[in-house]
Amino acid sequence: MKYSEMNKEQLTAEKEKVQKAYDDFKRQGLKLTMARGVPAPEQLDLSINMLLHCLDGDYKSKSGADCRSYGVLDGIPEAKELFMEMLGVKEDEVIVGGNSSLQMMYDTIIRAMQLGVLHSEKPWCKYDKVKFLCPAPGYDRHFAMCEALGIEMITVPYKEDGPDMDMIEKLVAEDETIKGVWCVPMYSNPTGISYSDEVVRRFANLKPKAKDFRIFWDNAYSVHHLYDDDRDKILNIIRECEKAGNPDMVFEFSSTSKISFPGGGLAVICASKANIELIKSQMAYQTIGFDKLNQLRHVKYFKNFEGIEKHMKAHAAIIRPKFEVVKYILEKELAPLGIGEWTNPKGGYFISFNAPEGCAKRIVALAKDAGVVMTNAGATYPYGKDPKDSNIRIAPTYPSVDDLRKAMELFCVCVRLAYLEKIAG
Amino acid sequence: MKYSEMNKEQLTAEKEKVQKAYDDFKRQGLKLTMARGVPAPEQLDLSINMLLHCLDGDYKSKSGADCRSYGVLDGIPEAKELFMEMLGVKEDEVIVGGNSSLQMMYDTIIRAMQLGVLHSEKPWCKYDKVKFLCPAPGYDRHFAMCEALGIEMITVPYKEDGPDMDMIEKLVAEDETIKGVWCVPMYSNPTGISYSDEVVRRFANLKPKAKDFRIFWDNAYSVHHLYDDDRDKILNIIRECEKAGNPDMVFEFSSTSKISFPGGGLAVICASKANIELIKSQMAYQTIGFDKLNQLRHVKYFKNFEGIEKHMKAHAAIIRPKFEVVKYILEKELAPLGIGEWTNPKGGYFISFNAPEGCAKRIVALAKDAGVVMTNAGATYPYGKDPKDSNIRIAPTYPSVDDLRKAMELFCVCVRLAYLEKIAG
Repeated sequence: MKYSEMNKEQLTAEKEKVQKAYDDFKRQGLKLTMARGVPAPEQLDLSINMLLHCLDGDYKSKSGADCRSYGVLDGIPEAKELFMEMLGVKEDEVIVGGNSSLQMMYDTIIRAMQLGVLHSEKPWCKYDKVKFLCPAPGYDRHFAMCEALGIEMITVPYKEDGPDMDMIEKLVAEDETIKGVWCVPMYSNPTGISYSDEVVRRFANLKPKAKDFRIFWDNAYSVHHLYDDDRDKILNIIRECEKAGNPDMVFEFSSTSKISFPGGGLAVICASKANIELIKSQMAYQTIGFDKLNQLRHVKYFKNFEGIEKHMKAHAAIIRPKFEVVKYILEKELAPLGIGEWTNPKGGYFISFNAPEGCAKRIVALAKDAGVVMTNAGATYPYGKDPKDSNIRIAPTYPSVDDLRKAMELFCVCVRLAYLEKIAG
Repeated sequence: MKYSEMNKEQLTAEKEKVQKAYDDFKRQGLKLTMARGVPAPEQLDLSINMLLHCLDGDYKSKSGADCRSYGVLDGIPEAKELFMEMLGVKEDEVIVGGNSSLQMMYDTIIRAMQLGVLHSEKPWCKYDKVKFLCPAPGYDRHFAMCEALGIEMITVPYKEDGPDMDMIEKLVAEDETIKGVWCVPMYSNPTGISYSDEVVRRFANLKPKAKDFRIFWDNAYSVHHLYDDDRDKILNIIRECEKAGNPDMVFEFSSTSKISFPGGGLAVICASKANIELIKSQMAYQTIGFDKLNQLRHVKYFKNFEGIEKHMKAHAAIIRPKFEVVKYILEKELAPLGIGEWTNPKGGYFISFNAPEGCAKRIVALAKDAGVVMTNAGATYPYGKDPKDSNIRIAPTYPSVDDLRKAMELFCVCVRLAYLEKIAG
């Protein structure tokens, strides 16, 4: 019976039952986390040969550079090729960097603040206020970065196939202090949805008032499919911007953090040739070059895009059952009661759960008290403030299937209890 | 006979002779570089076991963290220990980062520009003008970084035991827009000198008008001795600043670029606990963590500071003969003629040559035309402008001893020719 169909008495009885179930869980002393999008140890094991056997005495890039020494600011050519194939960009549209795409995003924004980007009239720090559009729920570290750098965030709601483009089109056309928009276009963090062709094309065709407006296209999960035969596919934003006559309007980021190793992968920025030229000229003062040995290691291990695709299937085999158990338990425990909504992603690292309004904080607190750590409620919104106190990000990859089942069972009890506390008093 | 003792006729004859020698060199079609402080391939070979055998299936830091995964922003504890021993700092005074100390310096300055440092009244970018003191000759990339970020540079001359401290004391006490000073305190780039105890103490006891003034102490060559029994030693700036009641006034940088690999080493920033706390809190928005696998690789290979010291002796055995051949040829070819002065460093990567005034650019151009690339004349001064057009940085580590001998013979011919062109017309 759905909760909405229960009378007061039934709800009170239900609450007592659920409270008891919760107390039982609490006594189990669980210690689990579904908080962050972290690969499981078995996923990390997939790439260990990269660490053991890949650098076998040949340290030369095909450019002739000794990867052990200085230089090659924008990455060795063979590492570029790996990403060119993966992201559909050209040789002069890519820079391969260090181990963190987050760092590349931060560096890109702080360079924009201090020096400006292509077509900037002045560095962004010379404005009283700079603003970014933040489709939400989104990636908490994007929002934290804006907050730390004093960039004002404007929340944009999501629709089924991407952010509310009507709102984005209107805002960027009006306000020249809106300098950027955050996007996770594929298997989005946390919703798991991928932008439709129409959404990508509307992004590429934006007519921003600011000549130096940039789309920050964090394509973190472009090859992170769960299924072989049912995959999302998005349009290539760099090509679409080119077609739309806005070739310089986008910075695309990606990494191998969830392909090889989060702690020792490769990050990449892609953009128009003109953007890349300016970035390289600015970056030349920051470093002589990134870790080319790690670039070479990745090339020798994956060889080409086919190697990456094959490798991603091994990841999928590990994490697919975890996504499925989450969805199975949500379906089993909550669907009949008619509370909560959740996404059904075909890839990425997250499932997004929308609790009944005003319940998310309480659910996360209940789960924590019973030993299961979730991403903080609100974290998926600018300033950590979810206006509906509803969204919770579920990160199923790290725990084992058994742990996950237990954690999700507890989670569902917490959802029920929080809701019943609210309506049954 | 010294050139200063020759009459016009003798000088003209000498010039003809030297011109002929130069033309002979030119015909040899040399292709050599003494331009940058780059380890030789044999030096890079010293550490190859780090790449082959070090990560043997155990990827756990002693903190319990899996080095393949996310996290540990400030570096794994065992990597910190390596640098704590090397630089004489405490656990909470160090952050181990990525592969580039230059990047750490840049990031430190750009954070200061955007956010400010400890004790800043406002971010540095909010001043109309920010200035750095630049002891010169110094490291070209320090100066280029300032120029790129719009920081005005004030050149400070060198004395025998370090920068002119009278001038530095006076300037920092007067001008609150002077926010920093660049130092390479040990085997300085390019002079090769190390700061005397008095100089270090005077640095530590500066009374800057700006509360957020910082000494940028680029301790790049702290273990890069050429000799076992004749080594420079400098005072520990962090301890001296502490004693002087200025604990937060210094940022110290170092790296293993010239210990393990320039392209795949570790960089480090050291400072007071209070500084490090603020830096970590600011840095948390830039990255989740640096490459911990590379940190672990270094720890497993070097084990401890003793391991580093032993390793540095192997480097010294390779590069000592190169420094000696440079000094030998300068002594043999130029000392009898009484032209030019050069330093006699006991470590580091450079020998600094002062040509007769107004000759440096011409010497470098002559050498280049004959196939030997030197560091650009002027590069060792702010804005690339050596007021005396005299200083040339010699980087002897990369070429083989035989190539170096040839290059230095040509170099001496170029010095003579440039000087004779100038005085004999």
